[in-house]
Amino acid sequence: MRNCIIAQSGGPTSVINSSVMGVVAKNNKIKYYDNVFAGLNGIEGILQEKFFNLSNLTNEQIETIKYTPAAALGSCRYKLKDVTKCTEEYDLLFDIMDKHNIETFFYAGGNDSMDTVNKLSKYAELKNRNLKFFGIPKTIDNDLPIMDHTPGYGSAAKFIASTILENYLDTNVYSKKNVFIVETMGRDTGWLAASATAARINNKCVVDYIYLPESIFNEEQFLNNVKKKLETQDSVFVVVSEGIRNAEGTFISELNAESKKDTFGHVQLGGVGAYLKHILIEKGIVSKVRSLEISTSQRCAMHCASQRDIDEAFSLGEAALDYSSYGENGMLVALKRTSSFPYFCEPIIIHTSKIANQIKYVPTDWINTESNHLNDSAFEYISPLIQGQPNFVLENGLPKFLTLRELIS
Amino acid sequence: MRNCIIAQSGGPTSVINSSVMGVVAKNNKIKYYDNVFAGLNGIEGILQEKFFNLSNLTNEQIETIKYTPAAALGSCRYKLKDVTKCTEEYDLLFDIMDKHNIETFFYAGGNDSMDTVNKLSKYAELKNRNLKFFGIPKTIDNDLPIMDHTPGYGSAAKFIASTILENYLDTNVYSKKNVFIVETMGRDTGWLAASATAARINNKCVVDYIYLPESIFNEEQFLNNVKKKLETQDSVFVVVSEGIRNAEGTFISELNAESKKDTFGHVQLGGVGAYLKHILIEKGIVSKVRSLEISTSQRCAMHCASQRDIDEAFSLGEAALDYSSYGENGMLVALKRTSSFPYFCEPIIIHTSKIANQIKYVPTDWINTESNHLNDSAFEYISPLIQGQPNFVLENGLPKFLTLRELIS
Repeated sequence: MRNCIIAQSGGPTSVINSSVMGVVAKNNKIKYYDNVFAGLNGIEGILQEKFFNLSNLTNEQIETIKYTPAAALGSCRYKLKDVTKCTEEYDLLFDIMDKHNIETFFYAGGNDSMDTVNKLSKYAELKNRNLKFFGIPKTIDNDLPIMDHTPGYGSAAKFIASTILENYLDTNVYSKKNVFIVETMGRDTGWLAASATAARINNKCVVDYIYLPESIFNEEQFLNNVKKKLETQDSVFVVVSEGIRNAEGTFISELNAESKKDTFGHVQLGGVGAYLKHILIEKGIVSKVRSLEISTSQRCAMHCASQRDIDEAFSLGEAALDYSSYGENGMLVALKRTSSFPYFCEPIIIHTSKIANQIKYVPTDWINTESNHLNDSAFEYISPLIQGQPNFVLENGLPKFLTLRELIS
Repeated sequence: MRNCIIAQSGGPTSVINSSVMGVVAKNNKIKYYDNVFAGLNGIEGILQEKFFNLSNLTNEQIETIKYTPAAALGSCRYKLKDVTKCTEEYDLLFDIMDKHNIETFFYAGGNDSMDTVNKLSKYAELKNRNLKFFGIPKTIDNDLPIMDHTPGYGSAAKFIASTILENYLDTNVYSKKNVFIVETMGRDTGWLAASATAARINNKCVVDYIYLPESIFNEEQFLNNVKKKLETQDSVFVVVSEGIRNAEGTFISELNAESKKDTFGHVQLGGVGAYLKHILIEKGIVSKVRSLEISTSQRCAMHCASQRDIDEAFSLGEAALDYSSYGENGMLVALKRTSSFPYFCEPIIIHTSKIANQIKYVPTDWINTESNHLNDSAFEYISPLIQGQPNFVLENGLPKFLTLRELIS
C-alpha cells in the first residue's frame, strides 16, 4: 500500500483547487498511489488526522472542484515550530504518515508553505525516514523567485484589470472633476497593482498613475501629479498597492489605520486608498474621490478567472504527481516561460530551499522614472496570463461550486 | 426631416447602453427617423447642443457599445427647475429640438429621469408643441413601480450573488470564528441585497442573514443572532443594504460616517458594513470580521452581466422606438412578466406620471418573521433575471468596450 496526501495552506486563490484536482486526476490515470488523501485545513488538520479520500471522487466532482475558488480542502496559517528548537510536531507528522502508509506529502501554498516543505524534507532526510515532501506553488502575489509566475496570479490580475476598466467607464460618465482610487493587495511587491496595465481601451492603458511597493511613495509628488492631471481631464484614475511606503519606510496605510501582525509576523495592511482619498480632499485638490478596495474578491473571483491560469494550475498538479513518482524530495513544480509570442510555459522543478523566504519584485526597468507608471514590458508579461474565459458549469445562472464541506456533511 | 435624440441620466448600469443601441438598431431597420442623435451628458449636454449622430455608427460599433457598461453617452444628475416656477430651460430645450428637427426625446434613466420626461411632455402639450418625450427605464435599484423589474437589476444581482458565493468560499477556508459582511447599494429598497438569495450551493442559500431597508434594523437582535450562530458554525455570512435604519428612522450608516446629500436631496450612504464590523468587535462577539463594500462594481461589472438583462434592455430600446413612431408621448416602456416557468416578459407602456416619485418595495410577505432573511419567493423572482453569460467580444483577454469619448476624440 502506497498513499499520498495533499493539503492547502495560506490565502486562497481562484485556481488552487485546480492544482489539487490535477494531482488527483493524474493519479487516477497512472495509479502510482493507491489513495490520494486530502488533509483538511492544511498541516493543522493532518496533525489531527482529519483526512478525506480524494480517490473516491467522481469525474464530475473533480471537474466541479477544479472550477471552485478558495481552498476546497480548507486552509490554515499554521507555522511549524523551528526544527532546531522543537521536533515534536515533525515526529508526530512522520508517525501519522507512516501509520496511513503515506509516502508523499504535497503542499499547495505560497512562500511560507514552501518553507515548511523545505524543513520537513530536510528533517526526513536527517532522520532517514522514507517520506517525501513536494511543493505546489500558489499565490496571487506572484512573488516567488526563479519561476515565471505563480498559479493564481493570472486570475487575480484579470479580475483587477476588469474591475479597473469597468470602474474607469463608470467614473467617467459625469463631467465633474473626480478621482477614482483602486487599492489592490500586495504587501511587498506590486505584481497585482501592475495588472492595471492590462486595463486598456483602444490599446491605451486607462489608468493615470500606478504606485507599487517597489518604489518610495512621495505624497507631495502624488498630490501635485493629480492636481496637474485634473487641469486637462475631468477624471483621474489611480491604482495603488496596499504595501506602498514613504521615504521613512512607513506603510502609507499605517498613517491611516491601525495595523496588526499575522501569525507569520507580517503586518496586515489595508486602507491606503482611504488615506489617499482623505488627503486629496483635505488638501483641497478635489472634492469628489471614490476609493475601492478590491479586497478578497481578487483572490476568489472564479467568475472572472483566466482559463489559462486554471489550466496551468491543473498541469502543475499533474506534474507534481509525476515528479514525485520519480522519487523527488523537497522540490516544487513551477512554470518556466519559453516563449511569449506565441506564449508557452513548461513545468520545471526547483528545490524549495531556493524559494523559501525569497521575494521576487517587479523589475525596476519596468517602472517609469517618476515611479508612477509602468512601461509596455509589464503589459507584455501580464497579457498572456489573463487569457481565456473560464469554462465552469452554470447552476441557477452562477458558477457551480463544490468543496469537501458539502461532501463531508 | 424628422430626427430624434437620446440621452442618459443618473447612475450607470451595465446595460443602459444596450437600450440606447436598441433604439439605434431599430431605427436603422425601419428608418422612421432620419437621424438618431445622442445628447452628451444627459439633458445638461442637450441644453448646450452637444450632440453626436448615432446613425453613423457601424454595426460593429453598435455591437461593442451594446456590451459596454456605464453611460457611453455620458450622464448627469441635472434636475430641471420646477415648471411652475421657471420655464426658461423648458422653452430653451424645445427651441433646440425644433432647430435640429428633433421630434422625439428618449431619456434613459431612473425615477428622477421619468419625472423629467413627465414634466417635459406635459409642458409640451400645454404649449401645443409637436414634441414627444419617451422614457426608457434603467436602474440597478429595481425600485420603479408597476413593471416587473428594471433593466440593469439582473446584471447587478448576478454580480452581487457571484461575489457573495465566492467570498463565502474564501471566508470558510480557515477553521477560525469569523464574520463576513457584504454591503450592497439600495437606499430605500432591498432589491439588491435580496439578490443574496441567489448565492447557493446545493440549492441552499449560503448567506445566514440578509437585512433590507424594508424592515427596522434591531442592533441588539443582530448581535444576538450572530453570537448564537457562531456557536454552531465557524463563519457567519451577513448581507446588508446600505439603507437600513433603526426604530428611530436613523440610517445605521449615519451612526458611523458623515453623510451628505446629492442634487436631488437624497442622503448619500455607505459605511453600514464598517459600522456592523465595528460593533461586532467592540461588543466582543468575534474578533475577526471582514466587511466588503461592493461599491460601484455592482452597477458596471459587464464581465459578469446577465445576458438576459442585456437582451431585455436592448428590446426595450427597440420597443421605445416603435411606440414613439405610433405617436405616444410622456410614456415609458417597461417589462411585464407573463410567466415565470418558463420565464417570459413582454414590453408594455406606462405613463411616466404613474412612475415618477413612486417606489416599489420588496414585498413584505417575502421577508421572514425575524426580518433577517427571505423566503423562496425572492429566489423564484430573481433567478430568471440572472441567466446567461454575456456575449461580449474579448480584446487582450478582457471585454472590449467603446464609448463616445473614443469616437469623438
